[in-house]
Amino acid sequence: MSRPQPASQHTVRRHNSALVLDAITTHPGSSRAAVSARTGLTKATVSSLVDRMIAAGLVVEGEAQARSGPGRRGTALHPSPDGPHGLGVEIGVDYVATCLVDLTGRVRHRTLRASDNRTSSPARVLTKVATAIRNTLKRDVPIGGVGVAVPGLVETATGTLRVAPNLGWEEVDIRDELRARVALEVPVQVGNEANLAALAELWHGHGTQDFVHVSGEIGIGAGIVVAGALFDGVRGFGGEIGHLQVDPNGPPCTCGSRGCLERLAGQDEILKSAGCPTFDDLLKALRAGDPSATTAVSEAAKWLATALSGAVNLLDLPTVVLGGTYARLAPWLTTTLETTLRERVLGARWSPTTVLTSTLGAEAAVRGAATTAVRAILADPDPYITAAQS
Amino acid sequence: MSRPQPASQHTVRRHNSALVLDAITTHPGSSRAAVSARTGLTKATVSSLVDRMIAAGLVVEGEAQARSGPGRRGTALHPSPDGPHGLGVEIGVDYVATCLVDLTGRVRHRTLRASDNRTSSPARVLTKVATAIRNTLKRDVPIGGVGVAVPGLVETATGTLRVAPNLGWEEVDIRDELRARVALEVPVQVGNEANLAALAELWHGHGTQDFVHVSGEIGIGAGIVVAGALFDGVRGFGGEIGHLQVDPNGPPCTCGSRGCLERLAGQDEILKSAGCPTFDDLLKALRAGDPSATTAVSEAAKWLATALSGAVNLLDLPTVVLGGTYARLAPWLTTTLETTLRERVLGARWSPTTVLTSTLGAEAAVRGAATTAVRAILADPDPYITAAQS
Repeated sequence: MSRPQPASQHTVRRHNSALVLDAITTHPGSSRAAVSARTGLTKATVSSLVDRMIAAGLVVEGEAQARSGPGRRGTALHPSPDGPHGLGVEIGVDYVATCLVDLTGRVRHRTLRASDNRTSSPARVLTKVATAIRNTLKRDVPIGGVGVAVPGLVETATGTLRVAPNLGWEEVDIRDELRARVALEVPVQVGNEANLAALAELWHGHGTQDFVHVSGEIGIGAGIVVAGALFDGVRGFGGEIGHLQVDPNGPPCTCGSRGCLERLAGQDEILKSAGCPTFDDLLKALRAGDPSATTAVSEAAKWLATALSGAVNLLDLPTVVLGGTYARLAPWLTTTLETTLRERVLGARWSPTTVLTSTLGAEAAVRGAATTAVRAILADPDPYITAAQS
Repeated sequence: MSRPQPASQHTVRRHNSALVLDAITTHPGSSRAAVSARTGLTKATVSSLVDRMIAAGLVVEGEAQARSGPGRRGTALHPSPDGPHGLGVEIGVDYVATCLVDLTGRVRHRTLRASDNRTSSPARVLTKVATAIRNTLKRDVPIGGVGVAVPGLVETATGTLRVAPNLGWEEVDIRDELRARVALEVPVQVGNEANLAALAELWHGHGTQDFVHVSGEIGIGAGIVVAGALFDGVRGFGGEIGHLQVDPNGPPCTCGSRGCLERLAGQDEILKSAGCPTFDDLLKALRAGDPSATTAVSEAAKWLATALSGAVNLLDLPTVVLGGTYARLAPWLTTTLETTLRERVLGARWSPTTVLTSTLGAEAAVRGAATTAVRAILADPDPYITAAQS
């Protein structure tokens, strides 16, 4: 007969460490007494755990606080900005980006390098990515985990990239491939870039808890956040708004279908219609009121509005957040989107959909990847504590 | 200063009653001892609650069970088929339906009456509905709650029907209107018919926990079920698949948009294209291989496939369930749907979407409404117990 086992002392300590570190991270500047009050753990337990976290470089002690009651004067505790960092890496369709985030959530370093990853083999691109990781490791900050953002379907259960249509990749085990190229002794998590960008918006953006975040690059992806949690479907393949068919007579898509949103409102299509070689040229032309640039973006706005109206009709989310290059195009997109959402969403009259612009810029996905790694450290700091002791 | 209060004895009894009745309903035939083991309540508490439930007509005692251990021989407990029933009512676009479900979940009675509700005022339709309810009340079974299914947006927070485009209704407080016409001293819940049909599928259907249930009538609605729970968005307006624009050049829709799925794959459109006056004529024509009937349904299948591919790309659900008239058309729809879902859903190669046919027939929504009322009784049986004692 199986009976529930009592939690081992180690399990309890592990759980308590996460509780204490969470209290310090969400309320930086708390004293040991405040952490004790917040967690319900005794002051002795908190003090012992905090001392170990200070020794492990996870927590730093700041100035002494004003005495607010009897007993020893408390000192302010903060997550250590020199503790383990999360390293985010993004394999874009035409760039490779990295981002270092410390335990306080601050971005400490980032790089973005143009790289036409469509014309290279996965092996060559991954070698470039490994070099970018190696360069970051040279900065000599402790890395506690790596998050990798990719523009394709990543299966939650296995972490495998199943397909990235815009890269032309299929069945690539990014984690293994990277580990074969660079010594990484920390956890490596792989995720879909649109989902990670939506998480970055949730953690560092406008503070809304229910939204669809849509980012336009060469591909178009969405991340759906419901009640403060990512909704990515049973296999993690959700949010593929780029492959909604918006025009049955539209051009063929890399996915095998035709008239997908991506083919009608993706960055490449907009630039081509506008006759602009680069995105900066497009912005310049838009600001100058150039008619073909304006028409190209209006046309894209129309298709994007169709797809977003469909998503909101299905999901009843109160907010749409424009990310990636759509954030930069927001001044020329928002009116069309708001008008169409008002006209086509059945419930719009009782609560119209708000269109917000992400302030996170092109780095949303890579920042989301890095922060995911940081949150994994915070959720289970025990290995760092144990490693520091041995 | 506010402090958490200890639960009152009444609150505890209320909670325990629900626990005990749930154990009896999910495991009919259990003995008092088995209920005690399952709930963790003492045998004395269980016995006292069960005795009160028997007195209140919620539970019946069956045959004595084989002795399985020391002590008094247990008797089998069942939810009472003569206890309070849930009464479901559906206001369809062209019919009014009722359904009585007992505590065991069995359908005890049902009616379906054709009624072109589009050509009548809400007041006249609601008077008809009140008559249907009154006729059911004449059957002299105890009613514990009423669920009303309507083809429109129902706001979760207020229970108000905001809009029903196919009825031409706006801002109708169904609950108040019904209460003004018929004496109903039990809770009345109003819900969207597509969501209630999806819940009926969850409770009485194929046993899948993650699916989109799409039902085609004059309107087309979907209910999204994720991890065994209805996902209907922040205001309850989700699942409006009928208003996804699938053809930008399509005909205008009652919602104010154009090219909505509903206008291209709704029942009226199919009948018109097929040249069939009734749905039974259409089925006859399809079975006979009539080319215009076959073409009409193929065309509808194409548009339905577009909308469902979009929904699955966004939500990554493994299963589509065809309900309502789509269930009757399933032999002529399924191949197109499966093929298109395979071609257009980006993750389909790793786990193709299964297309199932609902076995609940036209009564899914009204049964869902009735079962919702039954589940409300089971979730809080205390008022019935108290009423029986006074």
